[in-house]
Amino acid sequence: MKALQFKNGALHVADAPTPSRPDEALVRVLLSGICNTDLEIAKGYAGFEGTLGHEFVGVVEKASERTDIVGKRVVGEINAGCGKCALCHARDPRHCLERTVLGIHGRDGSHAEFLSLPAENLFVVPDEVADEQAVFVEPLAAAYGIYEQVPLAHHTRVAIIGDGKLGLLTALSYGAASSNALLVGKHEGKLAIARDAGIATCLLSELDASVLRTFDVVVEASGSESGFATALDLVRPRGKIVLKSTFSGEPKWAASRVVVDEITVVGSRCGRFEPALKLLERGKLDLTPLVSDEFPLADGVAAMKRAAEPGVLKVFLRP
Amino acid sequence: MKALQFKNGALHVADAPTPSRPDEALVRVLLSGICNTDLEIAKGYAGFEGTLGHEFVGVVEKASERTDIVGKRVVGEINAGCGKCALCHARDPRHCLERTVLGIHGRDGSHAEFLSLPAENLFVVPDEVADEQAVFVEPLAAAYGIYEQVPLAHHTRVAIIGDGKLGLLTALSYGAASSNALLVGKHEGKLAIARDAGIATCLLSELDASVLRTFDVVVEASGSESGFATALDLVRPRGKIVLKSTFSGEPKWAASRVVVDEITVVGSRCGRFEPALKLLERGKLDLTPLVSDEFPLADGVAAMKRAAEPGVLKVFLRP
Repeated sequence: MKALQFKNGALHVADAPTPSRPDEALVRVLLSGICNTDLEIAKGYAGFEGTLGHEFVGVVEKASERTDIVGKRVVGEINAGCGKCALCHARDPRHCLERTVLGIHGRDGSHAEFLSLPAENLFVVPDEVADEQAVFVEPLAAAYGIYEQVPLAHHTRVAIIGDGKLGLLTALSYGAASSNALLVGKHEGKLAIARDAGIATCLLSELDASVLRTFDVVVEASGSESGFATALDLVRPRGKIVLKSTFSGEPKWAASRVVVDEITVVGSRCGRFEPALKLLERGKLDLTPLVSDEFPLADGVAAMKRAAEPGVLKVFLRP
Repeated sequence: MKALQFKNGALHVADAPTPSRPDEALVRVLLSGICNTDLEIAKGYAGFEGTLGHEFVGVVEKASERTDIVGKRVVGEINAGCGKCALCHARDPRHCLERTVLGIHGRDGSHAEFLSLPAENLFVVPDEVADEQAVFVEPLAAAYGIYEQVPLAHHTRVAIIGDGKLGLLTALSYGAASSNALLVGKHEGKLAIARDAGIATCLLSELDASVLRTFDVVVEASGSESGFATALDLVRPRGKIVLKSTFSGEPKWAASRVVVDEITVVGSRCGRFEPALKLLERGKLDLTPLVSDEFPLADGVAAMKRAAEPGVLKVFLRP
């Protein structure tokens, strides 16, 4: 089968063997999405080699367990735990120290014709949700996961920093639940997507001094080192900063400000799929404006280049 | 009156005017303690000029409000809010953006014969508590404040990094409440103080690999840049790191680890005085082993030098 792989420091579409793990489900990929993590991996981040991709929607071809899902359209939780440790027993394989992660760590990914995952990782997609929306479930779950880690009341003042895919998904998913959020970014065109969905936006360069240190919660989703400094500028004393973006390297931070203002910094990586699927099923969220382009899987290398261009949001790969 | 001041980049014992604010209480200082923050200020941190010191026990000489406390022995909350903002109205002057802080920001401190504070900041010291214990209430409140911000159950595994004054106070105050803590430090002699109080200790160089990433809560109280890295090594996925120490400058941090392991970092500066006073009143905590030396106020400059020597813990100044 065709698969977009990163090997020996280079990207190429390879002819790879179809996965065949009898203990797992085999999924035929319908559509996969390129994430910034894929771009980081292609720069050598995390030392991963193999098939990239962890955002997908597909159809179950084989499953020795959960045979009822064969033929069904599914999305999949990307972390596969060891099944033996305390975290796995507590149903938290996402933090298992021995876990593999689809297309990121120890497990081939979704930019391929087929992929393999434990059957228990798969979630059936409701008929109402199109492939082009369902493929967003993984990043949407990650964005929406914030609200499970940091419970928000209706009056909570939330600022989201970053108008890239993650920032927009965070703003849109929050906007679907409440109206008290401000998205801060650098790109008028991207901010417009959130504004069209009824969310307040502001260019970073036009932040008014009167809003500094007033937000109860600030979500850092810009992925840039200056994003954390902006978050510190916006959060109120005793407020919370949710850190969503991973960085390569170790940034500097104003640790003393965190102590003096008794700020809480919450690292947030992934979220549960059920609430994200429900959000899409309710039809209140249209993610179409986040799609910039689509390529056939055979043109995967060109698709990755396109995804890395400034101003480009989600790029799909279709096997 | 005599006062230990930092001015124009130099420390000296000055002849300063006795404070005379009719809206505040006048306190005659019995004993004051030198804190690491004093040492940092004397290096230019925070840009403060004036009388140093914020740990004290004294006797109220005058008070236009709360006249019942005149003649009483007191300790004092060091933050004085503006009294007008939302934080002050919510009884949180400790985070008021316009606050002054005794001996740290906009307000002369306690290394003097007299000091001035709003009467509402003062707490009467029970007769059972000696001056030499009461003078620890401010840092003890800061140490104990951790347990108000991060509620701990009996089985919570806690590691405390740093065997300096703050780390020892944190370990001793926690040890008075529970027995499931490990103090990690670099100085056998300082660790012995905690061990004598029944707290488990470990030299940093002898940390066993089996305890890495197992602690529910890690308190960083070492004040060194490597302390945060050690905290990350010790905390379990989804665990909490309490950041107590302030640094001059901006350290680097492994922000991606915080995100991937979904760790929560809680900045913690100060705490309420009541629980700290109660802890001392119950007599379960003997802080005498933390006292390294005592100087007359007139020898304040020598006392500061002594407090900065390696291995030295608390140094007192007696007016």
